[in-house]
Amino acid sequence: MKELQVELNNARSYPIYIGSGLLGQTALLNRHIRSKQVLIVSNDTVAPLYLSTLQTGLSDYQVETIVLPDGEQFKTLQYLEHIFDKLLSKKFSRNATLLALGGGVIGDMAGFAAACYQRGIAFIQIPTTLLAQVDSSVGGKTGVNHPLGKNMIGAFCQPQCVIADADVLDTLDDRQLSAGLAEVIKYGLIRDPDFFVWLETNMALLLQRDKQALAYAIERSCINKAEVVAEDEFETGVRATLNLGHTFGHAIETGTGYGHYLHGEAVAIGTCFAADLSRRLGWLSDADVSRIIAIFKAANLPVTPPAEMTVARYIDLMSVDKKNVDGKIRVILLETIGKALLPLNVELNKLQDTLLQYAA
Amino acid sequence: MKELQVELNNARSYPIYIGSGLLGQTALLNRHIRSKQVLIVSNDTVAPLYLSTLQTGLSDYQVETIVLPDGEQFKTLQYLEHIFDKLLSKKFSRNATLLALGGGVIGDMAGFAAACYQRGIAFIQIPTTLLAQVDSSVGGKTGVNHPLGKNMIGAFCQPQCVIADADVLDTLDDRQLSAGLAEVIKYGLIRDPDFFVWLETNMALLLQRDKQALAYAIERSCINKAEVVAEDEFETGVRATLNLGHTFGHAIETGTGYGHYLHGEAVAIGTCFAADLSRRLGWLSDADVSRIIAIFKAANLPVTPPAEMTVARYIDLMSVDKKNVDGKIRVILLETIGKALLPLNVELNKLQDTLLQYAA
Repeated sequence: MKELQVELNNARSYPIYIGSGLLGQTALLNRHIRSKQVLIVSNDTVAPLYLSTLQTGLSDYQVETIVLPDGEQFKTLQYLEHIFDKLLSKKFSRNATLLALGGGVIGDMAGFAAACYQRGIAFIQIPTTLLAQVDSSVGGKTGVNHPLGKNMIGAFCQPQCVIADADVLDTLDDRQLSAGLAEVIKYGLIRDPDFFVWLETNMALLLQRDKQALAYAIERSCINKAEVVAEDEFETGVRATLNLGHTFGHAIETGTGYGHYLHGEAVAIGTCFAADLSRRLGWLSDADVSRIIAIFKAANLPVTPPAEMTVARYIDLMSVDKKNVDGKIRVILLETIGKALLPLNVELNKLQDTLLQYAA
Repeated sequence: MKELQVELNNARSYPIYIGSGLLGQTALLNRHIRSKQVLIVSNDTVAPLYLSTLQTGLSDYQVETIVLPDGEQFKTLQYLEHIFDKLLSKKFSRNATLLALGGGVIGDMAGFAAACYQRGIAFIQIPTTLLAQVDSSVGGKTGVNHPLGKNMIGAFCQPQCVIADADVLDTLDDRQLSAGLAEVIKYGLIRDPDFFVWLETNMALLLQRDKQALAYAIERSCINKAEVVAEDEFETGVRATLNLGHTFGHAIETGTGYGHYLHGEAVAIGTCFAADLSRRLGWLSDADVSRIIAIFKAANLPVTPPAEMTVARYIDLMSVDKKNVDGKIRVILLETIGKALLPLNVELNKLQDTLLQYAA
């Protein structure tokens, strides 16, 4: 087992455990659970596979479970309320602990529920998708979607720890694996050029689920994420670069209806948009853009957008992005492969040029 | 105008402005609003009276308004969502500012909406009831109710400032005025014995809405609140004493259906319970309890509980209080008039004795 640390102020630092067979390790769980009261939040895909393994490590606790339907379309205030219903009907106190067993949706919702229940209880992230292990479980961004914008309602709330058990990826379907690779590639693009080259070389191994290659990709991604979050926990600066491709990607997710695209798929398409725009504004070369498109294709990810979205629809949806200031659209662009720029107001005509190339 | 400061760490300190004619003062608002985007959250009792006055001071801003129905029964996740709908449909950015124009319900909801919208935007408290001016607008507790427990979903989120304009109390109905006095009396009971004596002497003046007496009561209450919050922002200790009477009071509010009792009314009854229990446990004398009941009566507040609540119902509702640890009921009791004890596990039989005296 490897242990990384997310270094934060005011006693909010916490470890990320990466390894095999971590799910049922009582000692690991004991270290971070605060009282006898434990609620496991999971979904109907993951629970049948891993809930009982997790529960075997928790025989000394009062363990309650809530199983939500699987999918981004259920990441809403309405389903969040089911978590509160369970906590209150079981009379859980402020020293209870919530365990998020699932992908990014479950982690975001359980984390936000923990942030709000009695104004804040403890939670532990146990990510079961590659995407959640390399990105969403680390850094304390929690929340739910709104019909008009993704992740628009939420809180910064750091977990007690993250337990990334590589074994759970054995049951991950291929589409979910690829979606996770979109965020892995992101770290190469925004701040780790050597890792990008490693990914170009090793993509086939990752898709074959080579244990060693996957373990390396997870660890290197978590190191990158932890460094960025440690530098800028509340996203007043560099943390926004983790949003490469997300402004476009969120617009695609919201515009096509949550759940149609996986988050990582939308981010892959969005990153191709961002690369194109970076080229138009004089940063990336044609060759850079080709390399970027090629690596997403190699990861079996989509690189062209949904046919039905118009330019006007993109602009409308992007105008509620969290990076925007006073309603002006800001996006993350690449200076080179391996270096992102801070959020930038983009001239509408340049943005439209990029969107026109792809949009309906 | 008087200015008090709530002293907190990490740049969260903020002023409380107390005075007359503050509502339309552009300079005061300018000082704390972050960008052109301003959303006023109010209710259908207060908006017809004061919304236009507030708007006159905001002519340079993009001002949107949302008017919610008035009452504790609307302090829910469902009505909270209406605030998010408005913010998103108007494409408000993360540097927008929310103004809460109303009583405690509006302040709690607008504050919680501000805490969650895009993971946190600025808000300003403009309390229009005595209760909100002396208590709920100060200290950053925000949230909504759940059918199974009051204020169970929320966040600690401090405002940019509190603007307490005494003029708005002119239109407050008598019942609301009395409800506010319950929290004023609380400060005397938990930490300010001289103020308690002053209140015993001046209650008639307060009920006649004597401007000078009211101004003094508001200021002294805010000083007490600000001191407690500065000492313990996140309620790990002494702040819990502000909850005197609230464990019982919340049970009454939840048990009778939100909106049936005003919060201050339920707190008055709950404080009489707490006084009785403090006497049974050997702290207060019979004479102390009589003085406490007398001052609430003098303030035209109820001192006897609803006929329909059984002991079992109280115990059930109190077992989800935020002060509880591992499901054990904890209450705030008085050592003397003017000195509260920290939260205490209470033996169930003593608690039942007190409840039996009153309950159905």
